[in-house]
Amino acid sequence: MDLNYLFFNDFETLDIMGPIEVFNGLAEARPGFYSMAGGPVKSRQGYVIMTEKASLIRPGGVLVVPGGMGTRTLVDDPGFIEDLKGLCERSEFVLSVCTGSGLLARAGVLDGLSATSNKRSFEWAAGTSDKVDWIKKARWVADGKFYTSSGVSAGIDMALGFVRDRFGEELARQIASRIEYIWNSDKDSDPFCR
Amino acid sequence: MDLNYLFFNDFETLDIMGPIEVFNGLAEARPGFYSMAGGPVKSRQGYVIMTEKASLIRPGGVLVVPGGMGTRTLVDDPGFIEDLKGLCERSEFVLSVCTGSGLLARAGVLDGLSATSNKRSFEWAAGTSDKVDWIKKARWVADGKFYTSSGVSAGIDMALGFVRDRFGEELARQIASRIEYIWNSDKDSDPFCR
Repeated sequence: MDLNYLFFNDFETLDIMGPIEVFNGLAEARPGFYSMAGGPVKSRQGYVIMTEKASLIRPGGVLVVPGGMGTRTLVDDPGFIEDLKGLCERSEFVLSVCTGSGLLARAGVLDGLSATSNKRSFEWAAGTSDKVDWIKKARWVADGKFYTSSGVSAGIDMALGFVRDRFGEELARQIASRIEYIWNSDKDSDPFCR
Repeated sequence: MDLNYLFFNDFETLDIMGPIEVFNGLAEARPGFYSMAGGPVKSRQGYVIMTEKASLIRPGGVLVVPGGMGTRTLVDDPGFIEDLKGLCERSEFVLSVCTGSGLLARAGVLDGLSATSNKRSFEWAAGTSDKVDWIKKARWVADGKFYTSSGVSAGIDMALGFVRDRFGEELARQIASRIEYIWNSDKDSDPFCR
């Protein structure tokens, strides 16, 4: 299974590194690290990671979209949003963390679906589209081929939830144990919703 | 405060990305990303991150050492171990995650101190030095200027614990809330010790 991680400048570290760690526990995972233009991408936390061009992503597979301050400008970048829409359409599953769901919503791929986002930036995310059923109290939401999670660390819980949905509870528990992670396995349990 | 992150090939992603995320919440943090030789470093999970030469690290500051499969060869690399010893001596604090404590132990800087490590590789870590008081049941251990944590995700709990010890409980709770992380704040609570 292709795991296609989409980076952009000012992405939030743990949004995408959490799922990268979790999915590394899948025996069949083939990870790939991409950005729209390819080349070096700088995280919000200051380090630079190397990426390939997103046009190299093969159809099918799982697309993982982080959030972070970079989303604030990208929602108003028609070229990025159009490319993201195409990537989503060609992916078997699409997972977003934090404000990444704002990018998906703006691309229109969440129209008529339920989704969630970061709790501190919830109004911003919800403001990206009024065609999405935004669920405030949720650690993560699964609807069709889309999984959207709350902020940052919630992406780890969602990634484990995705493993459970696709490969069973036992493997999800094994991975959580291997990375010594105390899994909040209930997607409706959201201690950060105020 | 300088936050000096030390990378090496086959480092484990979340070991170091967890603390990077947590310490980004410190207003005074100046993060730097290093490896002994500088240049590109490949994670165990397959992506490449750019680093500067560790010789550029300024005295003082907090050194963060991840674990991962790369530690298995580095413990037997006298040049690396010698350089690591020097870095530790010049740092105000040294934090390791997972099998990173095996590197510190081999460098002799934990002699006479208490430390912990990954629970699945505990015997390996403990085998790197018989001059360390290895504590099996601990989410993390703080002794002098050294903090050592259990596997992977435990580094997030330890990083928040370090923030609490240095800057107070309130800031640690604020950061945990900002990254929507359910903090295991008790260093003696270790659900993965068998």
